[in-house]
Amino acid sequence: MKSFAGDKDVNPGDVVGIIGGFGGMGHLFSAVFERAGYKVLCSGRKTPVSNADIASTCDIIIVSVPIHDTVRVIDEIAPLLNEEQLLCDLTSIKTAPVDAMLKSKAQVIGLHPMFGPSVPTIFGQTIAASPVRCDEKTRHTLYQIFTNEGAKICQMEPKEHDKIMSIVQGLVHFTTLSVAETIKNTGIPLEAILPVMSPVYRIELGLVGRILGQDPSLYADILQMNPETVGIIEKMSDSVTALKAIVASKDSEKFAAFFTENSDAFKAYIPQATEETDLMINTLVKMK
Amino acid sequence: MKSFAGDKDVNPGDVVGIIGGFGGMGHLFSAVFERAGYKVLCSGRKTPVSNADIASTCDIIIVSVPIHDTVRVIDEIAPLLNEEQLLCDLTSIKTAPVDAMLKSKAQVIGLHPMFGPSVPTIFGQTIAASPVRCDEKTRHTLYQIFTNEGAKICQMEPKEHDKIMSIVQGLVHFTTLSVAETIKNTGIPLEAILPVMSPVYRIELGLVGRILGQDPSLYADILQMNPETVGIIEKMSDSVTALKAIVASKDSEKFAAFFTENSDAFKAYIPQATEETDLMINTLVKMK
Repeated sequence: MKSFAGDKDVNPGDVVGIIGGFGGMGHLFSAVFERAGYKVLCSGRKTPVSNADIASTCDIIIVSVPIHDTVRVIDEIAPLLNEEQLLCDLTSIKTAPVDAMLKSKAQVIGLHPMFGPSVPTIFGQTIAASPVRCDEKTRHTLYQIFTNEGAKICQMEPKEHDKIMSIVQGLVHFTTLSVAETIKNTGIPLEAILPVMSPVYRIELGLVGRILGQDPSLYADILQMNPETVGIIEKMSDSVTALKAIVASKDSEKFAAFFTENSDAFKAYIPQATEETDLMINTLVKMK
Repeated sequence: MKSFAGDKDVNPGDVVGIIGGFGGMGHLFSAVFERAGYKVLCSGRKTPVSNADIASTCDIIIVSVPIHDTVRVIDEIAPLLNEEQLLCDLTSIKTAPVDAMLKSKAQVIGLHPMFGPSVPTIFGQTIAASPVRCDEKTRHTLYQIFTNEGAKICQMEPKEHDKIMSIVQGLVHFTTLSVAETIKNTGIPLEAILPVMSPVYRIELGLVGRILGQDPSLYADILQMNPETVGIIEKMSDSVTALKAIVASKDSEKFAAFFTENSDAFKAYIPQATEETDLMINTLVKMK
């Protein structure tokens, strides 16, 4: 994996076509390309411009549709593309979309913006990128469009991406939704819980509430279509079983051993985690 | 449950004795009582002042020792107390400590500060309180000491407290530690995960790292000594099993049904959760 920081060097002029360009993410990226000086053409389910129009006229083609539609859309346009074009997708998994894109003749860079369409700009956000078949200039130019706006690029292989995302996204979403289900099943109303929550627990529960305000189908796709999530969920299930037994044993030494093994594994990260969550807590304390 | 907001009305003059007063929490509360005009006397494991000295000379006695020592310390001093004194503890469970305190003749208010000793002040923080045997004036005076510094009091019965804390603390700590264990067991180093994390995932993982920087025995006690946590962990384990099956089924409609049931249950809270986590995310984005 490699990280890239921005410097000013972009050569615009080409036309970017965004398939699904009227969705939240397409809209966000339209603006990014326009600010970089590109002409942007979008297709959607109800536009006169078709996906085939995009494929046959644009220099850069971005597929920005739901994960479960991505391979289908790529398969539809792949035969229309040539070696001069650049084909990208914007989905949260990379192995299957990249495999599908490689069946075209185009240059291929898989992208995964690590944020939702509700962010005000891409400044400070991260984009994972898998440049699986492209020349150096194309890759550089594309990255600069994002890094010039303050985004960070993390480059990785599609399989490595899906493995890491099964942790960063899959495990986190799975756990958050399991916590929601557990709280719901206690039958204790949220009104009894919220008043006692100090800032650190407001952050924890805030992340539960946040996910539930979003589109279920995105989370279904991230969990159900990443081939690596089944394995990570199995591991989470094992961890729950192991810790459940330790809590039930009431053996504080066993608990301390479990805890310490993990604090050793996370040792290098603890100062940063503490600093960042302290900042979160202080921000919430000042909120009202 | 009742909440109390502060107004200025405290009548100091009495002596407060803190058993375990040299620990982090004892130290924090010493300062609170001193600022309210009280004289504070502390006992610790190595002080000339004994727990018995505190019990026989102070007007308000605060037991601030680890959860697993609390009932033992209360049992030790309970026979020395009279009806004029106020006895409190500061531990994260309430049923057992309050039962032990009620064996004395003193007035009894169980307390649970919903924060750690590292907070700069108690401003903006929450204290759960169980006033199980006390006159109105005593309760009012004690609450004012805390609310005058900007803390919020949430009053509840000991059993209600332990049930709610099994969710707010038990479920959250259990899940956070299970996630740590799962990440550790993937064998994927944190250095491969951290660079791709956008702010929302930095918050999620930050909470994992934060807990691991703290004292294992506190978390052992909170999980192992609250009689309600066994039930909530059982429910969490069931939720994990249920969601695991839904993910494995790859049935997006089943997933949407699970998700929607929970978003319905959390509906009233979602706007607040989104607002607060948006604020967290924007704070992190601006951090660097």
